[in-house]
Amino acid sequence: MSRGDVAPFSLSLSFPRPTEACEIILERGALGRVAAFLEAYAPAPRYAIVSDGTVAALHGSAVQRAIAAAGRPAELLTFPPGEANKNAARWVELLEALGDLPLGRDGCVVAVGGGVTGDMAGFAAAAFARGVAFVQVPTTLLAMVDAALGGKTAIDLGAGKNLAGAFHQPRLVLIDPATLDTLPDAELADGLAEAVKHGAIADAGYFDWMTDHAAAILERDPASLDRLIEDSVRIKTGIVARDPLEAGERALLNFGHTIAHGIEQASGYAIRHGHAVAMGMVVEATLGERLDLTRPGTAHRLRATLAAFGLPISPPHDLDPDAVIHALQSDKKARAGVTHYALIQQIGTPASPPWTHPVPHPLTHAALQTL
Amino acid sequence: MSRGDVAPFSLSLSFPRPTEACEIILERGALGRVAAFLEAYAPAPRYAIVSDGTVAALHGSAVQRAIAAAGRPAELLTFPPGEANKNAARWVELLEALGDLPLGRDGCVVAVGGGVTGDMAGFAAAAFARGVAFVQVPTTLLAMVDAALGGKTAIDLGAGKNLAGAFHQPRLVLIDPATLDTLPDAELADGLAEAVKHGAIADAGYFDWMTDHAAAILERDPASLDRLIEDSVRIKTGIVARDPLEAGERALLNFGHTIAHGIEQASGYAIRHGHAVAMGMVVEATLGERLDLTRPGTAHRLRATLAAFGLPISPPHDLDPDAVIHALQSDKKARAGVTHYALIQQIGTPASPPWTHPVPHPLTHAALQTL
Repeated sequence: MSRGDVAPFSLSLSFPRPTEACEIILERGALGRVAAFLEAYAPAPRYAIVSDGTVAALHGSAVQRAIAAAGRPAELLTFPPGEANKNAARWVELLEALGDLPLGRDGCVVAVGGGVTGDMAGFAAAAFARGVAFVQVPTTLLAMVDAALGGKTAIDLGAGKNLAGAFHQPRLVLIDPATLDTLPDAELADGLAEAVKHGAIADAGYFDWMTDHAAAILERDPASLDRLIEDSVRIKTGIVARDPLEAGERALLNFGHTIAHGIEQASGYAIRHGHAVAMGMVVEATLGERLDLTRPGTAHRLRATLAAFGLPISPPHDLDPDAVIHALQSDKKARAGVTHYALIQQIGTPASPPWTHPVPHPLTHAALQTL
Repeated sequence: MSRGDVAPFSLSLSFPRPTEACEIILERGALGRVAAFLEAYAPAPRYAIVSDGTVAALHGSAVQRAIAAAGRPAELLTFPPGEANKNAARWVELLEALGDLPLGRDGCVVAVGGGVTGDMAGFAAAAFARGVAFVQVPTTLLAMVDAALGGKTAIDLGAGKNLAGAFHQPRLVLIDPATLDTLPDAELADGLAEAVKHGAIADAGYFDWMTDHAAAILERDPASLDRLIEDSVRIKTGIVARDPLEAGERALLNFGHTIAHGIEQASGYAIRHGHAVAMGMVVEATLGERLDLTRPGTAHRLRATLAAFGLPISPPHDLDPDAVIHALQSDKKARAGVTHYALIQQIGTPASPPWTHPVPHPLTHAALQTL
């Protein structure tokens, strides 16, 4: 088309985007060498360390001092602990603080803490200057085996959890299991529920090992904990690497979680996430068995392992199945009258493509009622 | 490494990301067929139309009605007009409104308006559900030839403009030059300054054509305006397609803009963007000539063309060069004592790699003083 024409004009453009690299390091005592790891995997002229108030005192300020001692400017930014603070107002405060430092577009955000900190600091790193480098230093078992892996960052909105966010891979995930020494038991349990899920969806050998070593794991035996984290990291990152943007296979990681979200919501979030996931896996395994999609006895094996970790094996008696169904209907994954579940075939074997299976709500209601 | 080991463990992951496709359509009267264009290039079960209050009345609600008439749910979300509203609080309101609809992760956000609307709605689309489809319907000349092209979205923070945002390409940029009929002259001038820049950095023939047809363009002769938009779209998208994430060549689009930002800031934003860009190009061309990087007479040619469009050809007499230099020093592109400029070699020929040239502040001060 020449410049003289005035005919309609169109252009089809395509924008390739660069591959993101992510290094995951698991080493007991790694936090003592945090400055060297940052220098190697996420070098930057300035660092912003983000922690909640509790973790700042335990680890965040130590990380900040270590980086400063290595000659790099590093500031510690804190916010009040708790999921309720993973909101838009706190996130904007964090962004404004990065702007006031100023961090600069070649700066790096380092999240030191659990899932809330990683999600919120990660989304701030994704948005600041349209994306700066990001490092995860998870200090809870849940963050080590789940939340810090895979590049999902988010904040909650009024209409729902994790409704605003970005896919933004950390340059480095630095896991130091020694930080678990100060973790409350209830928070350890949240991570263990995810580890049981990893075994259930991907590795029967890991599932059995975990079941046999439940006592040592609960006693925080270093070698056992390290091995649990390593196997869970392998399983989760393997799935995420094959489906980073959740187009299909990544749905397998939702095993137990669809029901769990319904239970959490129906309980007004009085039931904590790990407990809800434990109940959710039992319910979803039961649904699978009733639909002949899951090998008989799977729910039984799940219960035995969950019980060994002190996790609940059925929903509480006062939980209203109608309230759970109601919550499921408002879930993003729900379609008229059915909910899609990532059911497993048996312990260690996930669903086949297309990964999820539609289950009519009356069946789910019945399973909730009988358990 | 076998499961029995407890030695340090590391994994190097890489996450390829999908190429983003963007269709640009320029057609006088295209807005009358907006539903068909959306169906073809951004099909979705639900649309959220975002406009400021002024443009909502002129075009936004017509777009919403056209989509609804074609049988697709479409809601109109509005916010008060003006750059001052491109802030975090308004952006959070917009996100919450998307959540309340609810838009859903397969929904589509359609920005109908100028650069502020496109920037803010685009960043909301980038963040909602970690990224939903986005369409730009620019209704100002500046948005048609510049802001709506290239995938940069952002909001302003306290510490600076466009400090939080994302690269998020629109699926479709639908340009209907008929929407310019209602555009105030001052806003048309903002777009013309960018068009002059496009000629200056990339196409001497376009620059000369534009100069010769300044009267017809100012009278909004349809054929002349359409041609101007088409050539500017080609030039801007050509550069962006070669450097989508601003790693190098995209800096060429900053010609005139480094000084412009300094002038805007020094004037307390009393000088509008298009005027500041016009002044900035003259100053930067003068700097280039004094450094023997730009062919003599370039600033003179720029002035003649800018004057033909009624744009300013030098900074106002009461502008304090010290204030401009001070603003430059706080600019992201500034380094100790120098500022990097994307100077041109001559009209139609940009700088060579590495695209920008460091200029000591005293030289800039002198140029500002003598102009």
